[in-house]
Amino acid sequence: MAGIRTIGIISKPNAPRAAEIVPDLLEWLRVRGFAVRLDEVSAGYADGRKGLPRHEVPEGCDLMIVLGGDGTLLSAARALAGRQIPVFPVNLGGLGFLTAISPGEIYPELERVFRGELRIGRRRMLRGQLIRAGRCVSEYEALNDVVVAKGSFARIIDLDAHVDGHFMCAYKADGLIVCTPTGSTAYSLSAGGPIMFPQVAALCITPISPHMLTNRPVIVPDTSVITLENRAEDDTAHLTVDGQVGEQLKSGDRIVASRSPHILQLIRPPRAHFFDVLREKLKWGER
Amino acid sequence: MAGIRTIGIISKPNAPRAAEIVPDLLEWLRVRGFAVRLDEVSAGYADGRKGLPRHEVPEGCDLMIVLGGDGTLLSAARALAGRQIPVFPVNLGGLGFLTAISPGEIYPELERVFRGELRIGRRRMLRGQLIRAGRCVSEYEALNDVVVAKGSFARIIDLDAHVDGHFMCAYKADGLIVCTPTGSTAYSLSAGGPIMFPQVAALCITPISPHMLTNRPVIVPDTSVITLENRAEDDTAHLTVDGQVGEQLKSGDRIVASRSPHILQLIRPPRAHFFDVLREKLKWGER
Amino acid sequence: MAGIRTIGIISKPNAPRAAEIVPDLLEWLRVRGFAVRLDEVSAGYADGRKGLPRHEVPEGCDLMIVLGGDGTLLSAARALAGRQIPVFPVNLGGLGFLTAISPGEIYPELERVFRGELRIGRRRMLRGQLIRAGRCVSEYEALNDVVVAKGSFARIIDLDAHVDGHFMCAYKADGLIVCTPTGSTAYSLSAGGPIMFPQVAALCITPISPHMLTNRPVIVPDTSVITLENRAEDDTAHLTVDGQVGEQLKSGDRIVASRSPHILQLIRPPRAHFFDVLREKLKWGER
Amino acid sequence: MAGIRTIGIISKPNAPRAAEIVPDLLEWLRVRGFAVRLDEVSAGYADGRKGLPRHEVPEGCDLMIVLGGDGTLLSAARALAGRQIPVFPVNLGGLGFLTAISPGEIYPELERVFRGELRIGRRRMLRGQLIRAGRCVSEYEALNDVVVAKGSFARIIDLDAHVDGHFMCAYKADGLIVCTPTGSTAYSLSAGGPIMFPQVAALCITPISPHMLTNRPVIVPDTSVITLENRAEDDTAHLTVDGQVGEQLKSGDRIVASRSPHILQLIRPPRAHFFDVLREKLKWGER
Repeated sequence: MAGIRTIGIISKPNAPRAAEIVPDLLEWLRVRGFAVRLDEVSAGYADGRKGLPRHEVPEGCDLMIVLGGDGTLLSAARALAGRQIPVFPVNLGGLGFLTAISPGEIYPELERVFRGELRIGRRRMLRGQLIRAGRCVSEYEALNDVVVAKGSFARIIDLDAHVDGHFMCAYKADGLIVCTPTGSTAYSLSAGGPIMFPQVAALCITPISPHMLTNRPVIVPDTSVITLENRAEDDTAHLTVDGQVGEQLKSGDRIVASRSPHILQLIRPPRAHFFDVLREKLKWGER
Repeated sequence: MAGIRTIGIISKPNAPRAAEIVPDLLEWLRVRGFAVRLDEVSAGYADGRKGLPRHEVPEGCDLMIVLGGDGTLLSAARALAGRQIPVFPVNLGGLGFLTAISPGEIYPELERVFRGELRIGRRRMLRGQLIRAGRCVSEYEALNDVVVAKGSFARIIDLDAHVDGHFMCAYKADGLIVCTPTGSTAYSLSAGGPIMFPQVAALCITPISPHMLTNRPVIVPDTSVITLENRAEDDTAHLTVDGQVGEQLKSGDRIVASRSPHILQLIRPPRAHFFDVLREKLKWGER
Repeated sequence: MAGIRTIGIISKPNAPRAAEIVPDLLEWLRVRGFAVRLDEVSAGYADGRKGLPRHEVPEGCDLMIVLGGDGTLLSAARALAGRQIPVFPVNLGGLGFLTAISPGEIYPELERVFRGELRIGRRRMLRGQLIRAGRCVSEYEALNDVVVAKGSFARIIDLDAHVDGHFMCAYKADGLIVCTPTGSTAYSLSAGGPIMFPQVAALCITPISPHMLTNRPVIVPDTSVITLENRAEDDTAHLTVDGQVGEQLKSGDRIVASRSPHILQLIRPPRAHFFDVLREKLKWGER
Repeated sequence: MAGIRTIGIISKPNAPRAAEIVPDLLEWLRVRGFAVRLDEVSAGYADGRKGLPRHEVPEGCDLMIVLGGDGTLLSAARALAGRQIPVFPVNLGGLGFLTAISPGEIYPELERVFRGELRIGRRRMLRGQLIRAGRCVSEYEALNDVVVAKGSFARIIDLDAHVDGHFMCAYKADGLIVCTPTGSTAYSLSAGGPIMFPQVAALCITPISPHMLTNRPVIVPDTSVITLENRAEDDTAHLTVDGQVGEQLKSGDRIVASRSPHILQLIRPPRAHFFDVLREKLKWGER
């Protein structure tokens, strides 16, 4: 990647490991002549500097370094808002599905990136629109999933699902997940969904604890437009995006989930094939 | 059942079918010389009468007639508060797991009861106690289940489970269900739990969308004392009993689930074996 | 479909409903001037005619009529051996996932086909090759699935799975299913796999009763080459294709599953959307 | 356990670890004055001695030492044929659900047993009878499970299940498992069954890949008599007991599964609570 001049850094809050890494990393980048943009958390780890709100960090950057876990990366992906900037994802805790570079590998892997020897995994994002009384009142971009779920003391959601205008099913359940292949190893997996290889051009619709036992996860092409209409009479259902942001729904609201034009460019270390991560995270059988 | 003199009636609200049945039923019982105690809903269906709060209905009754679905029966079971009064459960909608007498069978089945030709299914209840700062601050009786679940926008519950003082597991999940055999066909079944025959002397601990894929439903003897400690740092988790009542939990709260001394006496029509209801409700294979 | 002159007919054996339909259908086609080629079963239903072996029927045909259930259609798909002949699938029993035309709709739907008013669902097939000692010793085409499973008294299969040369997992299980979207509603669904919309360009690898509880169904792009190496020391594992044909495996055998160039052209009646069939077959919720 | 004079030893074949242990163990027991009875495998590890057929080893023994894994223990349990002799189970590979004593603990744990400081887990066994043409033609004792499954190239089993004479369900599936609590962590768990605490007085009926998605595991009291009638027209289904022994079934055969009078007495080391083993084997969350 010739032409890298400005690098953004986004860090997980309250992470002692990030607090150790950031000052060294800044010095390492300064010596090599890079301009750096820090979010407020990263700036807090580098005394005396003032940081930017997270969504302002990517502006003008040629590379984004994310220090944290999969959660920090989900937040950084939203901050990118579709800008085509490669992301260098460092996992501070255990191996993440998304963050496969360990702290000890930061410098050799960065040098590899600067030499242009990098592999980029392209992760297609998902758009979630909230339609109320015929108007789109909110729009979200998700790397993992768009979820409609019941409120705390509510008993179920009551949703009508259509795919490309065809009635699919009336769901009574704790909730319904629409996930990307990237999100298939997150919430959807806990709810009984399959694992989807990142290159599969599809979305998965996974019900959470459905009343109807035959309501199984359904895989549709990623060109599908999935519409979920909230048929509950009260206003207890809510929308959650990537498990991080969202809002309360009203009766009659419709959620439209469809492929986003945005693609996250995720830098992968050479050895971290998707299956290697799966085997380690899920403790699958080795030979 | 010789000696039936006073009969209580509890009905589902806003149920046109119950509104038709109640006046006729009152007249039928009056002619036969029974005293009747009505809850406010039932009284509302019988113009001009004033009803009792639901929990006062059972006092002095020798038989309770419940008109509604499984939900109305769950509520009636709590209203009984352990009084050993047989319950005559009429299902107004489709067949229920608990309410196996249809409206058309009311009078012949009641006559059968008055002749003493009745079968009673005994359903052991479950007690849920909320321990806060070492003190029991609430106590609930459940026919189906005691559930600890995450709040609307929270991501998970974080619970330590002990059984009879032995550490069992640290759960990260949407929630955790402790259910009776009666409750095994309700929420637990949707969450992936097994079906338990009513006579099995056991409880089932069913995780809801657990992060750890190997966290499967666990069956323990019904003499077990199950303790769930809320390790979440915020106060978003909540306790729900039979999907109907409950309260918000605080960090550090403990839920103790154990066998209740209360047993619900459920009158069953002669033909409704547990498996017959299962096959019809779950559309299992007939020969 | 202008230019239909020759029509093949393949029927399910021992099917009284087919025995009624075939003579009428032959007369109806004769009157309209079509040439007809019958398999031996269909010929048996039409006294006095001699039938062809099933794999010879398609030769020279412009349309294939299949009378039976999904099983007969699977067999017919293999008999087509990749010839691009539209298939008119009549279900004699209940609605099938593949055979959505009922006996009462045969003539109006055929007329619609002859007028060219037909919708064709394209179902991509799967190729399964058996490699023994480095040589391909058998090759199969599957509409639904290629399955490696344990023998009757064997305890498990022991397989190494690779996808595009990357080691995926060492499976210990009752068996392993590789299925197309079409096959996702067949054996894979029983084994816990998701439902895949027919247009999804993917294959699903579904383990059957795996020892490792985290071995969940995995969806890969349909351009993947999946290799399963039989690591069992005895010769009890076997290969089955579409649940109908197959053979015993030896220790060290490799099964290579990959996209076939063959596509089955399935005629669909206008109202039978995939979701309509799903809802009816799985008794999903209607509004 | 005062009064131990004769000790039987049963070992796993082809196990280098057992081959190391047996000579030392014999010497250790000889010095202490015990009489020893060896099976042929154990004798093979102790040069120059002649062993007994496995089923003759327990005769006259006061304690049985089993060296192997859960599989060796299952076989030893059958060899005991109901004799009430405590079993000292040593696991040679990883931790087993049944064999919780590691090789390094053998001598201190044996001394503890000789001092009478032992905990015994009582594991109720299951009886499986094969009824053909109205006569019982075989009878098996199972520690884990009695399984009816399809033959290699057969597509399904077709079984009618009755419990205590009540029709339960017509199963179409790969097979059906009836398991004890002990067996709930074996094959049944892979097939989707729950984990049952050993003290639960129940049996679990777990279908393997059922066609009907609502056919979920069913828990019945352990006093139940479960009858499975083979409705398949061919003779491909077979019966397997503990995954080790069994036989081919014929059309019309009935399998009767019910509680055995036999109880296996399993010596447990002090620290190995059921949940400790579960957490380690299933890699559940620790705090």
